[in-house]
Amino acid sequence: MKLGMIGLGKMGYNLTLNLLDHQHEVAAADVNHDTVKQIAEEGAEPAYSLKELVEKLESPRTIWLMVPAGEVTESVLDELTPLLGAGDVVIDGGNSNYKDSLRRAEKLGEQQIHFVDAGTSGGVEGARHGACMMVGGDDDVIARIESIFEDTTVENGYLHTGRTGSGHFLKMIHNGIEYGMMQAIAEGFDILEKSPFDYDYEKVSNVFNHGSVIRSWLMELTENAFKKDAKLDNIRGVMNSSGEGKWTVETALDLETPAPVIALSLMMRHRSLEDDTFTGKVVAALRNEFGGHDVVRK
Amino acid sequence: MKLGMIGLGKMGYNLTLNLLDHQHEVAAADVNHDTVKQIAEEGAEPAYSLKELVEKLESPRTIWLMVPAGEVTESVLDELTPLLGAGDVVIDGGNSNYKDSLRRAEKLGEQQIHFVDAGTSGGVEGARHGACMMVGGDDDVIARIESIFEDTTVENGYLHTGRTGSGHFLKMIHNGIEYGMMQAIAEGFDILEKSPFDYDYEKVSNVFNHGSVIRSWLMELTENAFKKDAKLDNIRGVMNSSGEGKWTVETALDLETPAPVIALSLMMRHRSLEDDTFTGKVVAALRNEFGGHDVVRK
Amino acid sequence: MKLGMIGLGKMGYNLTLNLLDHQHEVAAADVNHDTVKQIAEEGAEPAYSLKELVEKLESPRTIWLMVPAGEVTESVLDELTPLLGAGDVVIDGGNSNYKDSLRRAEKLGEQQIHFVDAGTSGGVEGARHGACMMVGGDDDVIARIESIFEDTTVENGYLHTGRTGSGHFLKMIHNGIEYGMMQAIAEGFDILEKSPFDYDYEKVSNVFNHGSVIRSWLMELTENAFKKDAKLDNIRGVMNSSGEGKWTVETALDLETPAPVIALSLMMRHRSLEDDTFTGKVVAALRNEFGGHDVVRK
Amino acid sequence: MKLGMIGLGKMGYNLTLNLLDHQHEVAAADVNHDTVKQIAEEGAEPAYSLKELVEKLESPRTIWLMVPAGEVTESVLDELTPLLGAGDVVIDGGNSNYKDSLRRAEKLGEQQIHFVDAGTSGGVEGARHGACMMVGGDDDVIARIESIFEDTTVENGYLHTGRTGSGHFLKMIHNGIEYGMMQAIAEGFDILEKSPFDYDYEKVSNVFNHGSVIRSWLMELTENAFKKDAKLDNIRGVMNSSGEGKWTVETALDLETPAPVIALSLMMRHRSLEDDTFTGKVVAALRNEFGGHDVVRK
Repeated sequence: MKLGMIGLGKMGYNLTLNLLDHQHEVAAADVNHDTVKQIAEEGAEPAYSLKELVEKLESPRTIWLMVPAGEVTESVLDELTPLLGAGDVVIDGGNSNYKDSLRRAEKLGEQQIHFVDAGTSGGVEGARHGACMMVGGDDDVIARIESIFEDTTVENGYLHTGRTGSGHFLKMIHNGIEYGMMQAIAEGFDILEKSPFDYDYEKVSNVFNHGSVIRSWLMELTENAFKKDAKLDNIRGVMNSSGEGKWTVETALDLETPAPVIALSLMMRHRSLEDDTFTGKVVAALRNEFGGHDVVRK
Repeated sequence: MKLGMIGLGKMGYNLTLNLLDHQHEVAAADVNHDTVKQIAEEGAEPAYSLKELVEKLESPRTIWLMVPAGEVTESVLDELTPLLGAGDVVIDGGNSNYKDSLRRAEKLGEQQIHFVDAGTSGGVEGARHGACMMVGGDDDVIARIESIFEDTTVENGYLHTGRTGSGHFLKMIHNGIEYGMMQAIAEGFDILEKSPFDYDYEKVSNVFNHGSVIRSWLMELTENAFKKDAKLDNIRGVMNSSGEGKWTVETALDLETPAPVIALSLMMRHRSLEDDTFTGKVVAALRNEFGGHDVVRK
Repeated sequence: MKLGMIGLGKMGYNLTLNLLDHQHEVAAADVNHDTVKQIAEEGAEPAYSLKELVEKLESPRTIWLMVPAGEVTESVLDELTPLLGAGDVVIDGGNSNYKDSLRRAEKLGEQQIHFVDAGTSGGVEGARHGACMMVGGDDDVIARIESIFEDTTVENGYLHTGRTGSGHFLKMIHNGIEYGMMQAIAEGFDILEKSPFDYDYEKVSNVFNHGSVIRSWLMELTENAFKKDAKLDNIRGVMNSSGEGKWTVETALDLETPAPVIALSLMMRHRSLEDDTFTGKVVAALRNEFGGHDVVRK
Repeated sequence: MKLGMIGLGKMGYNLTLNLLDHQHEVAAADVNHDTVKQIAEEGAEPAYSLKELVEKLESPRTIWLMVPAGEVTESVLDELTPLLGAGDVVIDGGNSNYKDSLRRAEKLGEQQIHFVDAGTSGGVEGARHGACMMVGGDDDVIARIESIFEDTTVENGYLHTGRTGSGHFLKMIHNGIEYGMMQAIAEGFDILEKSPFDYDYEKVSNVFNHGSVIRSWLMELTENAFKKDAKLDNIRGVMNSSGEGKWTVETALDLETPAPVIALSLMMRHRSLEDDTFTGKVVAALRNEFGGHDVVRK
């Protein structure tokens, strides 16, 4: 089928190539016109504005957004929506908060524009050669456009998750689980590092991936990381985060669901952003007050 | 090579079959003589006592223990050690605490008996058709017996982890990571269960296993579990534990390594063993005291 | 000075008595007219509608709200605001979210109505005989009305915390700390309860309050609770919560401040609301899948 | 009564003065002979060896140890025990692990020497002018020596907690609760520090101590600390620990009692001992592997 792609960053560019590989026609737009030219050489129809993109598609249109979640998605939708008409479909393939997706679906619905939320996992490599997609939206809308999800995912890597919002919600949970798994793996290796034994972490992660209960893609990536830098001597343990772990914890709080492991995974990331903490200062000062315990002076 | 196997439970029995498949000769003993007879029909040499087992092997002997960690392992070693001589090798394939392994290695070493600690992962299926083994012990000892580990594990599923104790230590860490991963997965599905959406968990775990960052053996097992019982309606959420998660947390405390995710995974298991908590009663009573908040009376 | 009080629940009623004790004149309104009559007998001027209340006060008016945070506060303000004029002061003495207070201050400010956020601690007893108040608002506004805070609090129990919003923010943090302290106390007694020793908890909490590092009002309340019910046999450990702990955790996440103790205190409350958990079912099912461990069937 | 004191550090020295104030006779020993001379000038009988100390007391003797828990206590007892006889009482006033106390009580009991475990709280100031003591031991033994506990504690600050071991167990729990309370307070101030408001922490802790639910000795100490250093600019947030928090968590694990708040309080202390973490490196490396997220290079 023919569709429009907005956003040709690492994810959108590779997803477009993936679509082209599967004989879909793609009109592609990006604020960076060089990238648009580049994808045109790969077979996409270049569009140098949202208006041009919309005009290259026949009604009912299908337009796939692969732009950063938050303000960028919001402003693209603000510009795009007035150009669209009843029956058109907008797919948000970014990591949007499901609450935003529910709000946007309602707003677009007022103009009979359909909204589909597609949570995407698998990284850049997945976008290019087969991703994992969790897609929320109305049955009839999904049925119309399902082939583009089936074609760009690995076998069994696409799921229509339910009504609108359920795709981004599930992707959020996916990332929450990922936070917990990563922290669990990392804590394990930290204990190994402080142990009296002398492990080869590349070999350890390799054997963990062959027949053990914890074999996983994340453990394969762990092996890759240790292959490049045996003790990770070249990096600092600063753990950034990009929103979905936080949303998972907030959602857990809203639903009164205890999620200590996901919450602590996030909080240890926050802790890693600080060299020293006010929490630590208060506790150290208190120990000094009641027990005369030494404090570390600057 | 020829070796002795002590313990023909689910793990030991299947490991013996696995060894026989690979042309090793196995003299096998168990307190349950019916099981000994049964394994004899599969090609093992039956031994109805530890003495008989030892006599069926030529010096230097190799004897593999697959018995429950703790008291059983201790008492088997107490009975076995006097029967052995210098140069013999004892492999502990159970989930022993590495501190016990270090102690036992030292004690056996006084009689020039070698101790090898083999952490085994992969469950019963792994024991039968290819496990994952993390083995600690002296280089020359390991070199002598390495073929039995290579033959009974999946490809790349065997690692000589370093000196004595390092095998069981690594298996302990493996299980600690496993605790964290399982709790992370479980928290994710708990939030899904309380969400406003209506997910099919079998399909969700299936799509998580195809192209996503969290694909893993544990997620495959999650899919199996939901295939059998779509909402897990038939079981209660009682999470038992068998020691290694606890040892991991204790070791983390000893090494002053923060391991909040593994610790909380264990503590939530402990919480699940109680219907009501004294902690909860105290907090509820306090809220009533200072704010007049209602308590739930029995 | 003369002021209006809206809301004659446990807190507002006692605060009114407290104000009257200190020679302030109070016009008092409540949806429950019986309560209004009752307080009138104590010396307050009864007001059977917000309109009547406003008319009983001269410009510039001071009106103190002691109504439940959230929708009730919102709707009272919606009804009250059109009745007020430039220079009037509205004090919100409830446990409102500081973000709501900032929003309301801005909205009222458009009509030159001043907003003051007064966080109140000390329970019903405090409202009656001397509370603790943390009050945010502009310096000149606070200066004008400060006597009512000074008179209704214990000595040194009133603090002008800074600009608008800072009072409710500080009260939120106060409650977050309270969550952590309560859970710490409760965990301690839970371990005592499971210990091999046989403690008298009333005596234990009493000794903790005499010379120990952990002596505190909460420990005094602990003693009171055990005095009434030595083992808390008559209540269930259901720990409800009323919002401020959750806001504290959400704020900690927003500010990227690790707050594991406050977060876990809240999550253990959420856990106590459930008899069984989906988290537990998933972990139990997984243990069964990989290790054949028994599950507890219903 | 007359008793012997072993250990004249900050705690033992002040406790001896406290005993002398209450007309008890004290024979005092310490490895530091200057301190022994110094306390002699205050009225104690000097003893320059354990042998001399024992000889200065008549049978049945009462000897109070105020020496560091662990190896020092062990070695003092090893030297002291052969000098004692049936009916003598040894009080361990240090922060010993209750398991050690149970073991020592049994060992001393073989020689009919009585063991009493006295957990002491209140710091140096308490030792001098009135401490809090939680004392475990047999009823008849305690009855014989109770006056020394009653005289050296604040009113109601002494409790006979039950059989041997229960004193040190309760002191351990006291410290576990203290860990949780301190971390809760510290987290609260950390959030304040990162908030958009500008608080005066000395005033904040002061108001928290007047009428609020969280008023406590620890909050008074917080006020003292901020009085000396308004933003704690002069110290680093390194949180050491001295054993009892760790024992509390280990005991909680042994008793299968969830104690997340106490555990996390300890783990955040461990975290504060590190400038960078291996956990953080692993998570950062993994994020880089799957998502191409930037790592912070050294």
